[in-house]
Amino acid sequence: MSKYAFGVDIGGTSVKMGLFDEAGNVLDKWEIPTVKDNKGSAILPDVAKSLLARMKEKGIREEELMGVGVGAPGPMDDQGTLLSGAVNLGWEPFNIPEKLGAYIKVPIKAANDANAAALGEMWQGGGKGYDSLVAVTLGTGVGGGVVVKGKILVGADGAGGEIGHVHIEDEETECCNCGNKGCLEQYTSATGIVRLAERYLAQTDVPSVLRDKRVSAKTVFDAVKAQDAAAMEIAGQFGDYLGKGLAMVSGVINPEIFVIGGGVSKAGEILLSYIEPYFRKYAFGKCKETKFALAQLGNDAGIYGAAALILL
Amino acid sequence: MSKYAFGVDIGGTSVKMGLFDEAGNVLDKWEIPTVKDNKGSAILPDVAKSLLARMKEKGIREEELMGVGVGAPGPMDDQGTLLSGAVNLGWEPFNIPEKLGAYIKVPIKAANDANAAALGEMWQGGGKGYDSLVAVTLGTGVGGGVVVKGKILVGADGAGGEIGHVHIEDEETECCNCGNKGCLEQYTSATGIVRLAERYLAQTDVPSVLRDKRVSAKTVFDAVKAQDAAAMEIAGQFGDYLGKGLAMVSGVINPEIFVIGGGVSKAGEILLSYIEPYFRKYAFGKCKETKFALAQLGNDAGIYGAAALILL
Repeated sequence: MSKYAFGVDIGGTSVKMGLFDEAGNVLDKWEIPTVKDNKGSAILPDVAKSLLARMKEKGIREEELMGVGVGAPGPMDDQGTLLSGAVNLGWEPFNIPEKLGAYIKVPIKAANDANAAALGEMWQGGGKGYDSLVAVTLGTGVGGGVVVKGKILVGADGAGGEIGHVHIEDEETECCNCGNKGCLEQYTSATGIVRLAERYLAQTDVPSVLRDKRVSAKTVFDAVKAQDAAAMEIAGQFGDYLGKGLAMVSGVINPEIFVIGGGVSKAGEILLSYIEPYFRKYAFGKCKETKFALAQLGNDAGIYGAAALILL
Repeated sequence: MSKYAFGVDIGGTSVKMGLFDEAGNVLDKWEIPTVKDNKGSAILPDVAKSLLARMKEKGIREEELMGVGVGAPGPMDDQGTLLSGAVNLGWEPFNIPEKLGAYIKVPIKAANDANAAALGEMWQGGGKGYDSLVAVTLGTGVGGGVVVKGKILVGADGAGGEIGHVHIEDEETECCNCGNKGCLEQYTSATGIVRLAERYLAQTDVPSVLRDKRVSAKTVFDAVKAQDAAAMEIAGQFGDYLGKGLAMVSGVINPEIFVIGGGVSKAGEILLSYIEPYFRKYAFGKCKETKFALAQLGNDAGIYGAAALILL
């Protein structure tokens, strides 16, 4: 009897869903809109309805389904209980497996979406073959997920892997979104890279293609690829901050590999060439050889990781 | 039938041993000298001999013994295999449970001594009642041990919890013992505190009782207790560094509690009053309320933790 699992990734705009076989192949994927009205009370019923319809369509019986894994935003404990709700969805704190289980009678597990994405990358993405990794998502902010021996490290308050808010710079004068000053996110997120670039361009006269246009993380790394001296200097600052931050992370949990994802990682391998040397400069002895890879699953990491909650 | 476990803590000078009941009470403890000749080849046979003699003396049969836990220096994987030997003991890499098991036929587990001590503090010491903690040992160096959900976080290279070598200061000009510059250990170990004090006293004219004598971590905190302004400033620098370092740690693994031990912690609660405010300054939102406690088991943490490998 073949066995299946669903991976569900609930976002503020849409819910992504995937049907997986036991070996981790995605057999089908689709999405539905996230209906946030009435404190998001329709979201889980909508998910269940969509999953049950897909089962009917594919002729999958409940006893063939190993379970449903769910990733959702917001800090969550390892039982899938939201610790302080999910602001983006309008959700108050509750236990996701329990609530979804009212509509679909199979084993259900849930995890924070960033943590699930880390697990997904370990299972079928950039961290395949490893069982302890730190996934770093360089997007609008900087997120992270820690997996140790194949299990998500949730943390006492669901704040495990919140590496975007590791303190990295004593001299910062502007506040991070979190209220602190000098967080890793302020220098290594897409917006952080723009900040670094704007500061550098304002403080120097170095000629640069970046002076002619609106600066983004993409234009910075495109300019790096074109050997633009200013862009290379800015990328070096980015790499110093991120390498230093990840060296700290490695001194605490000593993962096998760092998997770098998020929009900024679209720059490709050149990004790693700006992180790894700084990482090795700051890392403790035996951690210096920790591996680095780019994330491979993109926006599908969440559904893979959610399915992995069931299949791993 | 009552059940027992032995906890064995192998150090460079002596091997500490304890007999524990299932509830975690220590019924007996003693030590034997560590014989390091011939690459330390006598150490494990000596341990076995001593344990078997104690069993005979107490009338404990092998079937009443749940096992023997061993803590030893050097990076170790979670199977108790030394990854690069134990320099202090003259040991090459080998699997401790396998080798000790040749002499005593009960279940055996082994862990790095600092990690075992962290587990001991969780089980019966300053972290009792919690199941995820970071133990910080402020001694000649700064060591650490991370316990997540009751399990030691070993790390890919046995470097989990090596928080003494987290990078904390960009401006440092002197090298740490590890070869890097600006490690947490350079400011928060007993010797690090002396360095901070000597720098501060050389750079200022602030009158201080510390100017009249040989400075140590103890004299600094004794002077703090006597409201010596210079000592309080130095303690503030120490607290800023350690609070910042532990805030980083909490951003990565978000433990329930930090347990502070080692020689420096003999200063008592006043030490925590210099760490916690800085920790809260730098920590990420929900981590700010992480608890702090002093270690309680002193030099016995190792035997407690070793026994916990078996009894927990």
